[in-house]
Amino acid sequence: MRHLLDTKTLSREDALRILDVAEDMADTQQREVKKLPTLRGKTVVNLFFEDSTRTRISFEAAAKRLSADVINFSAKGSSVSKGESLQDTAQTLQAMAADAVVIRHGASGAPRTLATSGWISAGVLNAGDGTHEHPTQALLDAFTMRKRRYGADSRGRDLEGFRVTIVGDILHSRVARSNVWLLHTLGAEVTLVAPPTLVPQDVTAWPAQVGYDLDEAIADGPDALMMLRIQLERMNAAYFPTEREYSRCWGLDPERFAALPQGTMVMHPGPMNRGLEICAEAADSPRSTVLDQVTNGVSVRMAALYLLLAGERPAPADETDTNKEDAR
Amino acid sequence: MRHLLDTKTLSREDALRILDVAEDMADTQQREVKKLPTLRGKTVVNLFFEDSTRTRISFEAAAKRLSADVINFSAKGSSVSKGESLQDTAQTLQAMAADAVVIRHGASGAPRTLATSGWISAGVLNAGDGTHEHPTQALLDAFTMRKRRYGADSRGRDLEGFRVTIVGDILHSRVARSNVWLLHTLGAEVTLVAPPTLVPQDVTAWPAQVGYDLDEAIADGPDALMMLRIQLERMNAAYFPTEREYSRCWGLDPERFAALPQGTMVMHPGPMNRGLEICAEAADSPRSTVLDQVTNGVSVRMAALYLLLAGERPAPADETDTNKEDAR
Amino acid sequence: MRHLLDTKTLSREDALRILDVAEDMADTQQREVKKLPTLRGKTVVNLFFEDSTRTRISFEAAAKRLSADVINFSAKGSSVSKGESLQDTAQTLQAMAADAVVIRHGASGAPRTLATSGWISAGVLNAGDGTHEHPTQALLDAFTMRKRRYGADSRGRDLEGFRVTIVGDILHSRVARSNVWLLHTLGAEVTLVAPPTLVPQDVTAWPAQVGYDLDEAIADGPDALMMLRIQLERMNAAYFPTEREYSRCWGLDPERFAALPQGTMVMHPGPMNRGLEICAEAADSPRSTVLDQVTNGVSVRMAALYLLLAGERPAPADETDTNKEDAR
Repeated sequence: MRHLLDTKTLSREDALRILDVAEDMADTQQREVKKLPTLRGKTVVNLFFEDSTRTRISFEAAAKRLSADVINFSAKGSSVSKGESLQDTAQTLQAMAADAVVIRHGASGAPRTLATSGWISAGVLNAGDGTHEHPTQALLDAFTMRKRRYGADSRGRDLEGFRVTIVGDILHSRVARSNVWLLHTLGAEVTLVAPPTLVPQDVTAWPAQVGYDLDEAIADGPDALMMLRIQLERMNAAYFPTEREYSRCWGLDPERFAALPQGTMVMHPGPMNRGLEICAEAADSPRSTVLDQVTNGVSVRMAALYLLLAGERPAPADETDTNKEDAR
Repeated sequence: MRHLLDTKTLSREDALRILDVAEDMADTQQREVKKLPTLRGKTVVNLFFEDSTRTRISFEAAAKRLSADVINFSAKGSSVSKGESLQDTAQTLQAMAADAVVIRHGASGAPRTLATSGWISAGVLNAGDGTHEHPTQALLDAFTMRKRRYGADSRGRDLEGFRVTIVGDILHSRVARSNVWLLHTLGAEVTLVAPPTLVPQDVTAWPAQVGYDLDEAIADGPDALMMLRIQLERMNAAYFPTEREYSRCWGLDPERFAALPQGTMVMHPGPMNRGLEICAEAADSPRSTVLDQVTNGVSVRMAALYLLLAGERPAPADETDTNKEDAR
Repeated sequence: MRHLLDTKTLSREDALRILDVAEDMADTQQREVKKLPTLRGKTVVNLFFEDSTRTRISFEAAAKRLSADVINFSAKGSSVSKGESLQDTAQTLQAMAADAVVIRHGASGAPRTLATSGWISAGVLNAGDGTHEHPTQALLDAFTMRKRRYGADSRGRDLEGFRVTIVGDILHSRVARSNVWLLHTLGAEVTLVAPPTLVPQDVTAWPAQVGYDLDEAIADGPDALMMLRIQLERMNAAYFPTEREYSRCWGLDPERFAALPQGTMVMHPGPMNRGLEICAEAADSPRSTVLDQVTNGVSVRMAALYLLLAGERPAPADETDTNKEDAR
């Protein structure tokens, strides 16, 4: 793999490869010494044009556990303007011999521009671009679903027939988009539930069902129910329901949570607006995978960095012993 | 030790243990290779809800000299709100397998909440919370006093009978609070000197004398005189003396400094407002321990991180040779 | 070498030494494992009183490739005031045992003050001070010129007779000043071209020719043409040409670029204002060295850190193998 730009064009084979390597990574994280020497001497740049402490530190932790050097480059607030400066910034990183660039950008498509422009030979990882995609989020979600479904035997498996309902502001959600494409590729069945004004016009072209009634969706008993985060700054827009209306109609409140089948996973990409799109009972219940998702995020990002930068499956576990680290 | 939250509940035994391990750490810092492999593979998160470059880089340096990976998480300016977000932030760090969280927070008690909530299994180090405590500052101060008193023979010793006078805005000072408790535990005698409006109401319950006259306190010949930093932004408050009045009555000016016994240490947690609470002559004199305090801060923080994360005394010095590092 | 403060007082011998070590560093960067163990256990502090992401990450990458620990200390926005705080900040870094301080400061002379004050024993590297100097920029420029001129055989060579024209806001440019002094020391001939209001009054004391007409300078066929970056925030000043006038008279536009001899290198310290001081055709042409300059910047900064902190030429290449790293 050269880059990880989206899930729409990610093949089933590559998706499973990332998930399987992430399983290996998760296994190493259970061991006493969590640090692998795999990417020693490699430089990973976190190029963040938008703030996102959670995603940044997840990638930073992933890179450091693989012994890469990490350089944080917060472009926000600096005088970079959009178009041209991406080129100059990219070329600067290239000239500094960055091996991977993790980019978050407000403009949809910026990571692809970076990867295909010829400005840079580094591997590019999309850490969220506009309302377009957030592929590592979808991969960690799929990892979490697969793990809950198959446990230790999940390697090599897909999500054939797994039924996932995604609820919230689909229109602006890169998390929803990345999930729809990846879940479809892995054989899952996706239902989207949203206020009518928050459904994208082109949704008919997506491999997903669309509904507007959360109670119906819950009665349908999905295998996983994914509540999206509401961006509070959008709440004032004319097309947006009021907070009260949103919470009443599309929030996972205690009653709806009680109505949910026991086997249904409750997912959320975080950070949660407790009491708005999800109630505390649901967020903190054993059925919630919110924290597993964070944990799995590090494993999935280790896997993606590994596949982009080292290009083969990691060595068997015993090679990760520190006393062999320097003998390679 | 699981956490380091305050000095009020820190036992004499644990306090001496930290100080003794800090002596070992200080010794290793004198050697050619300053880096110890002790915390390799461990992740230390600096979770700072308030700015404090000095404290942050002291912890960062301490963690890196023990070979830990450090992730800086500045929560200031991000959209985190107080109560709930601390939980979500904590759970995120937990899910990322942080081994220690160094937290600075504007709310008194936040570190304890973090440590006792069950949100997190990482060790929690309080790097300053509201007007409550700043335990590593008190430990580095005690380390500095003990070292000046006993030199190379200070291991295992306490501060029995050592007389310390702390001067300034006691009301708002977490440094004063942490010092009062720790010094008392170690057997020292503490006198507080402050403008009447800057003495806390509950001071009668503290194990310390209270005075209002700095000249008297100086005539009394303490072993150590600790000048607190004035927060300039508080100067406009109605209860605060004017800058001129403060400096005249409670500042360590050249005349007072001249009146101080030769053997009295002059301490300050930094950064100093030269000319306000302390004159340059005092700050830069050989009796000043200001820079020793900074140096000792790194050793004390190394010790605290070590005891929380590795849980036993460091290996003898020769094991720190880099050629043995990877053979462990 | 103890410090790197300017190029005005840098001897020819030391300049060539930095450039030659930088060649060694550039060679190691071509190899599979880019990381050298040379500065393991050393702490490099990036002390930036002004923002400069590019320079900061170049120094950060350089230090990390030499295995130093890097601590970023952004003093901007913190409550540090100029004069006194530099002393306190310096003493704090000293007390923390920083081995090198890379300082960028708005006040000309701040790095020299830091280095000569006695506050600090660390090596000081000037990363740009006011309108005074930016020595590593000039060194990377000289490295780039020498490399283009002599290729693999450039070690030990100077720039005798090399003709360099520097164009732009000379008055405010620390890059121009550092280049003038270094190029003169290395035997090059420097011509400055600027709007009359942007030529410093003391330029007659500089070892450089001064002109006002860019077309004449181009017709003269220099070996290198260095376009300085225009600080857009200065554009409104009364002494500054309008953007349109600047671009028309002192910009390297497509016509001027076409008139330039084939052998002339086009240089720019970056980031470029494309369409203002330099056109895209020039910036992206094979004659442009803009990206080489960035790459060489890392090598030159590795060399400077190495010479300040390790003090001898690096070990032969085979010692950099990771399996020997720990046996030193």
